[in-house]
Amino acid sequence: MNENFNKSLENIRMSPIVTISEEIRKQAPVFKEKTGQDFILFQRGEIDFPTPEYIRNAAKKALDDGFTKYPKSGGEAVLKDAILGKLERFNKATGLTRENIVTTYGGQEALELSFKLFEGKKGAGFAPTWSVILENFIPYSDIDFTEVPLNKDFSINFDAIEKVAKDISFFYLNTPQNPTGKLFTKEEVIQLVEICRKNDVFLISDEAYEKVTFGGKEHFSPTSLEYDNIISTFTFSKSYSMTGWRLGYLVTRNERIPKLLTMGNYTQTAGVTTFMQYAGKEALDNIEAEEKAVSTMVEEFEKRRNLLYKGFQSIDGIELTKPDGAFYLFPNFSNFIPNSVTGSERNTYIYKKLLDIGVAAVYGSCFGHHFVDNVRFSFSTTPIPVIEDGIERMQKLFNSL
Amino acid sequence: MNENFNKSLENIRMSPIVTISEEIRKQAPVFKEKTGQDFILFQRGEIDFPTPEYIRNAAKKALDDGFTKYPKSGGEAVLKDAILGKLERFNKATGLTRENIVTTYGGQEALELSFKLFEGKKGAGFAPTWSVILENFIPYSDIDFTEVPLNKDFSINFDAIEKVAKDISFFYLNTPQNPTGKLFTKEEVIQLVEICRKNDVFLISDEAYEKVTFGGKEHFSPTSLEYDNIISTFTFSKSYSMTGWRLGYLVTRNERIPKLLTMGNYTQTAGVTTFMQYAGKEALDNIEAEEKAVSTMVEEFEKRRNLLYKGFQSIDGIELTKPDGAFYLFPNFSNFIPNSVTGSERNTYIYKKLLDIGVAAVYGSCFGHHFVDNVRFSFSTTPIPVIEDGIERMQKLFNSL
Repeated sequence: MNENFNKSLENIRMSPIVTISEEIRKQAPVFKEKTGQDFILFQRGEIDFPTPEYIRNAAKKALDDGFTKYPKSGGEAVLKDAILGKLERFNKATGLTRENIVTTYGGQEALELSFKLFEGKKGAGFAPTWSVILENFIPYSDIDFTEVPLNKDFSINFDAIEKVAKDISFFYLNTPQNPTGKLFTKEEVIQLVEICRKNDVFLISDEAYEKVTFGGKEHFSPTSLEYDNIISTFTFSKSYSMTGWRLGYLVTRNERIPKLLTMGNYTQTAGVTTFMQYAGKEALDNIEAEEKAVSTMVEEFEKRRNLLYKGFQSIDGIELTKPDGAFYLFPNFSNFIPNSVTGSERNTYIYKKLLDIGVAAVYGSCFGHHFVDNVRFSFSTTPIPVIEDGIERMQKLFNSL
Repeated sequence: MNENFNKSLENIRMSPIVTISEEIRKQAPVFKEKTGQDFILFQRGEIDFPTPEYIRNAAKKALDDGFTKYPKSGGEAVLKDAILGKLERFNKATGLTRENIVTTYGGQEALELSFKLFEGKKGAGFAPTWSVILENFIPYSDIDFTEVPLNKDFSINFDAIEKVAKDISFFYLNTPQNPTGKLFTKEEVIQLVEICRKNDVFLISDEAYEKVTFGGKEHFSPTSLEYDNIISTFTFSKSYSMTGWRLGYLVTRNERIPKLLTMGNYTQTAGVTTFMQYAGKEALDNIEAEEKAVSTMVEEFEKRRNLLYKGFQSIDGIELTKPDGAFYLFPNFSNFIPNSVTGSERNTYIYKKLLDIGVAAVYGSCFGHHFVDNVRFSFSTTPIPVIEDGIERMQKLFNSL
């Protein structure tokens, strides 16, 4: 009986960002031949720093120490203890034990498993939303998802949340946020958690960019609060330039969830690579090396943010709120798009103009139904001179539109 | 609206083998104090060899070469090419390309994704069956699973398969098989594939133990045949003592499945750790080092098998077919269990007698509804002197029953 496969697998869509990157790969040589110039890659979420040496060394040592046997279900005790230390030091989250933690393959598996908890149910999150939520986790778990648009300056419309909160099982928060760079304040997070508590709604809190904050501002983790029904997901990817390692974890005060998601993680992958967990422990526990590695990276990101932000400010008509975290800018280009341009043509209007000048970025409709006149610029792989070149090209382009 | 979580997650059960290992951990010190003797651990699927140095070195080199960035969706080209070489050399599977392969976190994720394809549908497989199929993959994908018992000597009852084949979407085959050590012959595999072809049934072929075969006998992979609807899953765990790495892959001639399962793998984990894939390439491509590492391990396993098999043969009343692969023996103890002992008491009757003499093994009902009078003995972590000790203890026990 040959038939259709599982609908939830069939419904997963290829991330449009991957499609964009493939398009760039084709267009870049053509552009180079025509203009002599390289494409400027503002579309990627990759990081151009190597993984710090102290973490690579810890992985090598673990390999030689024989940590190549099956991992412990839910995570090695040494890594969990290091995570507890980091939660207390950095996230001000206390009163947690090993039983509150599940180690995963990146923030990705932590989020995927969290969404799986609510398979077939209703959820909501802010628009714009990270594309993997929309293209992958929602179809894979068959979630009925409501996008609650942020205000134009990326502040929260709490009335809109109050309205949907009555009908949903969970709310998805990402702070600092992809694609806006919005760092939600302590007050905003507390108010959001209070709405969840009042309506008996779970909060899935994606804190992948927790260490990437600017101007002395700090990430506030909802897991520092005393509400049990929060799942905070974390990754080593962005803090330690470990995107290719796939190491992450989730933390929750809820008693049942770690047991269920340990089983989910075991079922999917039989646990996280043992020797990588020892490297993860060192990443967190070697505080001196950790602070140096993180600050070196974040200081460079802050320079890039400042430069790119100033660049957009120099162009009349671009509307933009300065981001306090992550490595994205998400300016609005409404003033440059004729009103007569609508629908899918409108979605890629600015994107295509940018391609013409050799600038790759991600158009707003990749992040949901709102903010389609915005475009995401990542500065995670673009050194300062490249950003300067990009600004020059864009100044010319938009001053002529 | 606080409510129940996803039923398919709630229905996953902890492997009884984990429960057994926990029980042993508690009983071992008590047993030691009483008898001065150590527990003999025949219950584990772990391997007591370290990962070969040439593979660890390749991982270290990849770490330093900067292969710490996001992996390519579905797998790195270098690993896929190495897999294609191995498929051709070892499995005699030709006519395949990179597009037929998806790299995964171990054979585990390869199987889990394969089962996910058939979510909510009917499948079948031989009894006895690997416990993770029964406790994890079946509930997680909500499969209606029929156990088709092997004959007493672990040969196939083809009539029984013909009967269920009309009603199922897929058949699960594991060769060499856990827990019996049965290596299905070329003729048996071909006949099974013919039944699948005739009934339009997919074959999920779990070939985790492909390199662990004895007496000059060789594994036959169904993927060497020209039937498109076979998914063969492989792992580095058992061939190269890499259980804790979690590296594996699946191969199929079906055109749609690799696209779907690449998406599934991406959604669950964002792909397999990049630098590990380079180590996997070296594991397969360094043929000289590979053959030496595998043969050293398999020769030792064969000695252990021979010894343990001879030991059971020396005990009157134990019925056992000599296994040609994997690292398990699955003898039948019916002659030692009184007819009056039934139900769950019968399931653990021999297991408990063995615990009394400090011998840990896995009772047959962990592997399904049939073969409940059998017990699985793994020799993957038991050196020769330990096996000798175990045999002596069992000779004494069963000669007195």
